[in-house]
Amino acid sequence: MICLVALAFAAIFARQVLRAETGSVKMAEVAAAIREGAEAFLKRQYSTIAVLAIVVAILLFAAYMISGSSTTAWQTAVAFLLGAFLSSISGIIGMWISVRANLRSAAAATKNAGKAVVLALRGGAVSGLTIVSLSLLGVSLIFYAFGADPVTTPFLIVGFAFGASFIALFAQLGGGIYTKAADVGADLVGKIEAGIPEDDPRNPAVIADLVGDNVGDCAGRGADLFESTAAENIGAMILGVALFSVFGMNGILFPLVMGAFGLIATIVGIFFVTEKLADQEDPMKALYRGFFVTAILSAVFLYVATTWLLNNNIWFFYAGLVGIALSIVFVYLTLYYTDHKYRPVKSIAEASKTGPGTNIISGFAVGLETTAVSAVAIGVALIVSFKLGEFSGVTNGGLYGTAVATVGMLSTCAYILAMDTFGPIVDNAGGIVEMSGESEETQKRISRLDAAGNTTKALTKGYAVGSAALAAFLLFSAYMGEVSNLTHKPFVSVNLALVPVFVGALLGAMLVFLFASLAIRAVGETAQYIIQDVRRQFKDKGILEGTVKPDYASCVDITTKGALKNMILPGFIAIAVPVFVGFALKYEAMAGFLMVATITGVLMALVLNNSGGAWDNAKKYIESGALGGKGSEAHKAAVVGDTVGDPFKDTAGPSLHVLIKLLATLTLVLAPLFI
Amino acid sequence: MICLVALAFAAIFARQVLRAETGSVKMAEVAAAIREGAEAFLKRQYSTIAVLAIVVAILLFAAYMISGSSTTAWQTAVAFLLGAFLSSISGIIGMWISVRANLRSAAAATKNAGKAVVLALRGGAVSGLTIVSLSLLGVSLIFYAFGADPVTTPFLIVGFAFGASFIALFAQLGGGIYTKAADVGADLVGKIEAGIPEDDPRNPAVIADLVGDNVGDCAGRGADLFESTAAENIGAMILGVALFSVFGMNGILFPLVMGAFGLIATIVGIFFVTEKLADQEDPMKALYRGFFVTAILSAVFLYVATTWLLNNNIWFFYAGLVGIALSIVFVYLTLYYTDHKYRPVKSIAEASKTGPGTNIISGFAVGLETTAVSAVAIGVALIVSFKLGEFSGVTNGGLYGTAVATVGMLSTCAYILAMDTFGPIVDNAGGIVEMSGESEETQKRISRLDAAGNTTKALTKGYAVGSAALAAFLLFSAYMGEVSNLTHKPFVSVNLALVPVFVGALLGAMLVFLFASLAIRAVGETAQYIIQDVRRQFKDKGILEGTVKPDYASCVDITTKGALKNMILPGFIAIAVPVFVGFALKYEAMAGFLMVATITGVLMALVLNNSGGAWDNAKKYIESGALGGKGSEAHKAAVVGDTVGDPFKDTAGPSLHVLIKLLATLTLVLAPLFI
Repeated sequence: MICLVALAFAAIFARQVLRAETGSVKMAEVAAAIREGAEAFLKRQYSTIAVLAIVVAILLFAAYMISGSSTTAWQTAVAFLLGAFLSSISGIIGMWISVRANLRSAAAATKNAGKAVVLALRGGAVSGLTIVSLSLLGVSLIFYAFGADPVTTPFLIVGFAFGASFIALFAQLGGGIYTKAADVGADLVGKIEAGIPEDDPRNPAVIADLVGDNVGDCAGRGADLFESTAAENIGAMILGVALFSVFGMNGILFPLVMGAFGLIATIVGIFFVTEKLADQEDPMKALYRGFFVTAILSAVFLYVATTWLLNNNIWFFYAGLVGIALSIVFVYLTLYYTDHKYRPVKSIAEASKTGPGTNIISGFAVGLETTAVSAVAIGVALIVSFKLGEFSGVTNGGLYGTAVATVGMLSTCAYILAMDTFGPIVDNAGGIVEMSGESEETQKRISRLDAAGNTTKALTKGYAVGSAALAAFLLFSAYMGEVSNLTHKPFVSVNLALVPVFVGALLGAMLVFLFASLAIRAVGETAQYIIQDVRRQFKDKGILEGTVKPDYASCVDITTKGALKNMILPGFIAIAVPVFVGFALKYEAMAGFLMVATITGVLMALVLNNSGGAWDNAKKYIESGALGGKGSEAHKAAVVGDTVGDPFKDTAGPSLHVLIKLLATLTLVLAPLFI
Repeated sequence: MICLVALAFAAIFARQVLRAETGSVKMAEVAAAIREGAEAFLKRQYSTIAVLAIVVAILLFAAYMISGSSTTAWQTAVAFLLGAFLSSISGIIGMWISVRANLRSAAAATKNAGKAVVLALRGGAVSGLTIVSLSLLGVSLIFYAFGADPVTTPFLIVGFAFGASFIALFAQLGGGIYTKAADVGADLVGKIEAGIPEDDPRNPAVIADLVGDNVGDCAGRGADLFESTAAENIGAMILGVALFSVFGMNGILFPLVMGAFGLIATIVGIFFVTEKLADQEDPMKALYRGFFVTAILSAVFLYVATTWLLNNNIWFFYAGLVGIALSIVFVYLTLYYTDHKYRPVKSIAEASKTGPGTNIISGFAVGLETTAVSAVAIGVALIVSFKLGEFSGVTNGGLYGTAVATVGMLSTCAYILAMDTFGPIVDNAGGIVEMSGESEETQKRISRLDAAGNTTKALTKGYAVGSAALAAFLLFSAYMGEVSNLTHKPFVSVNLALVPVFVGALLGAMLVFLFASLAIRAVGETAQYIIQDVRRQFKDKGILEGTVKPDYASCVDITTKGALKNMILPGFIAIAVPVFVGFALKYEAMAGFLMVATITGVLMALVLNNSGGAWDNAKKYIESGALGGKGSEAHKAAVVGDTVGDPFKDTAGPSLHVLIKLLATLTLVLAPLFI
């Protein structure tokens, strides 16, 4: 129900955005090129993924049949396909609106910044609400379709989460490779070789770069958080099964209800970001206000939901508050480490004075350092929510405490997603404004929004990592529960002191490193294609003189092909290694693999995301005039750092979030084969 | 006995080296400056560490008294001090000979390369043999001194290993910070600002740089492997206790005997590197020949030892062979990833063509990739040696199988150490030759040796990581055995599915990231002091004109103070975090902490060491004339990569090896407090 209401609101926001003015003809032309490029990429990407998904569905079906679980075989395969389908749909809707909102936001920015902020955020909200509602709807639908038996059905729908993970992996990998390859390619030839500014219309790769912002940040992160919601719901439902004797159906439905409440909180939060306020103040301040409204409302709803569904047990309410608090902590941590106002970014900028070498060293040191407080925060949240769950007096309440914390953290998910999609929309709007040669004033106005967009993108990544860490713990328990069910004996210990479990853990950590390596390398390889194409086009002198229009479509096409080709190897490794380890070392080693891969993946994602964000903002800080400003030696060094950070923060880091959840859902689905 | 023989051989090698010619007066002058600098650093470093060690010994004593283990309190404290003392002594002896061998090797290089190789390797062998013999002697002495009760004594001597770890931590950290800060400082002001070549006598920091090679690679790595040997012996002895009923005392003495056999194998191996052969061929080939002789002889001795001490159980012989094989695998893996003949370094050099950004990205991707095969190799070695141990038919033989594999791997330790110390000796010889203005031909000859030295240093690091991973598994078992003893109930499961254990594991992985961050940052901070001092000295125009002699001692002094000051924070964190986690989350969580810290530490050390080595050799490859050679844009980019790689491979990476073992011995010693 609430999901449908939320979808209705999404539609209303979409209409508002679409009705807004579309600005000059030139703007519309640029936007049309971006839209076409993005749609062409999505079309080709999803047809590739669809084929892969059907193959996997058949393999899944076959594997279940062989392992003798013929009754659940079709259910798992169907759930998988539905998860994959809904994830794709929500990705497509999100893209559809964002490649339209960019133009409207750009047009609005010619007049005032407030309207641009509101339009971009509402465009983002369309994504956020759609993604979260479809995820909830999908889980609920399939839960009722498969019989709604409280004890067995949750296990049947794990396929749904795996389907969502599967799409997310390729959407994030393909999108992440696309966006950074286009960026690096455009910059290397355009800025460095030809000496023209960023987003210059003479650069043939510039449209591909703007398309990349959408397919990476928007479609990629959307799929990422679609699956976070799906995985969290299913994990929490499976834990609810264990507490069936205490809460009945309510324990299983609780996560779904809180998800729906979160949607309402988000809608209200969005309305608190008004044109008037956003125009007068720093755009970040307006966005934060909306976030806090959402968080506070979520806390209120949490109280309602625990009172109503969880026997009025106040301890679970406290556990949920821990989750909401953790989401706030992660937002501020990311801010501290990636904003130029604080020590870390300043120290990188300072280090740029002695060249690119020291810039890189100090940025990498900052990235490594970010893991410290983050890991402590996650650890404290886990322990405290577990203890609170134990205080509830319910048997096995501890684990359910961590589940409620995860539910609490993810209740603000739709708002965070709206802020995230705000990023590529204003980034694109900036590109459109620059390419259509708008006034200096408009450019200034939009570049302030662009900076805010960079911050929101960084915050979302921090949030995504934190929620992945919490959700993962749920999924471990779900996996162990499933293995117990299948083996008919309790599986409660993952003993790292056993050689196979230790080796599994070692290989799990290794997979994270290897996957990051392959993702980073894929960007480099794809960028080579673009570099060659741009160089080829620049041979026509007319392009650089501005008399001949460059062939944007050729760059878009080449990037699309390159990204799709290069996402295959890391994608394959991400699936093949756990399957191999599971078969070879069996289920307990697999649990060790999963847990240590999660730990390492969370920390490595933090390193990559935050070092990348810090390098980016150190560069921006210098460009704003500090330490010699644009063109100084320090600036040149900072540009190198930014280039290094790009594939870290926009390809490898976000792909790791997805990898973590993929591993969890993959092991859940394949558990029958690892026994 | 054999240890004494080995020490005698060390003395003979030392006499041979000292008797060799010392070359021109100018050479002797340079060498004297290096020697004085190194000795000044060591003196100040060890006096700092001595104070810390005494404080820790008192704290240890107090902690044991409070926790009610008053009988073992003084034994642990004494063992700690002895471990610390012997480790320091062997570090000092190693340094003493290497700052003398450098001059002799340089003098020999004026005539032929073969003599220089032999002198440098024998100088290295003095270190290698001394370190390993003193480690064995110490363990044996204290074993007998504490009563040689086979069942309880091994637990009493864990303090010895902790003492060795404690020294190793500060020796490696202090030395690593010193060497890279001096290097970065000398290069940034000398090469980049003043435009004078590397090792130019006009650069005031050049002597500090040469001193750094000794205190980092020589004293640091020596302490690292001293404690590997100590920890491995004690770990294996504790496992031997569990098999007392099967093998009696022999199972406990086996590791000591094999250690002694390894010394003999090394001495023979050293003799196979003759002047004649080393002159005619690639120096690496000569060094490899010696290594293979040592490895084959070790295998033979292994057969003898298993037949004699382990009831002629052939399965343990096979398990030991696995360890020797692993040492060879690691040597070749490192070679593949860091030699310019193969794909990885070539790809980095290729990426340098498009600037420093792509150079860094591709080098980091290579570093991450190296974890894959290495982790698989460690995993296979653990599983196979465990299975072989099980095949032996001895109860709990599996774990002892992994112990024998570790013993096998470490039997070539003294030779590897000799090769490692070969590195700084020829590096120094190169510096001496350059600074004293020897002929072109001599410079060429020595620079070939210098390149070989870089390779041997990289190989040793690979070996050190691999052996740390194997030895760590022993130490986990030892820790669990000790906890069982203390709690009088079996402690056999480290259950990652428990919240505190999972959080412990998360914090363990985090410590690795944080420690690496602090170590890298310490280099940057220390380098700042040197940069300022060199800039100050360059204000006197006479220095750059070559008419005024720069004040080398001032740079040496400043680097010493800076390195010692900046090693305190990472050192403190390395000890404080595990102590805190152990107290707060108790012994099982501590085991999770230790195991996951080990996994992450091994992988991260591989990333840092190998990416650093690959960047270094990509630069050298370009300097040899490829892709435009010196002065090209690609070369400039490669120099940036090399600068970034320096603190990775020479400070953070090696310090992580030590951290891993420190954590293991620390938990062993403090186990009574975590219960």
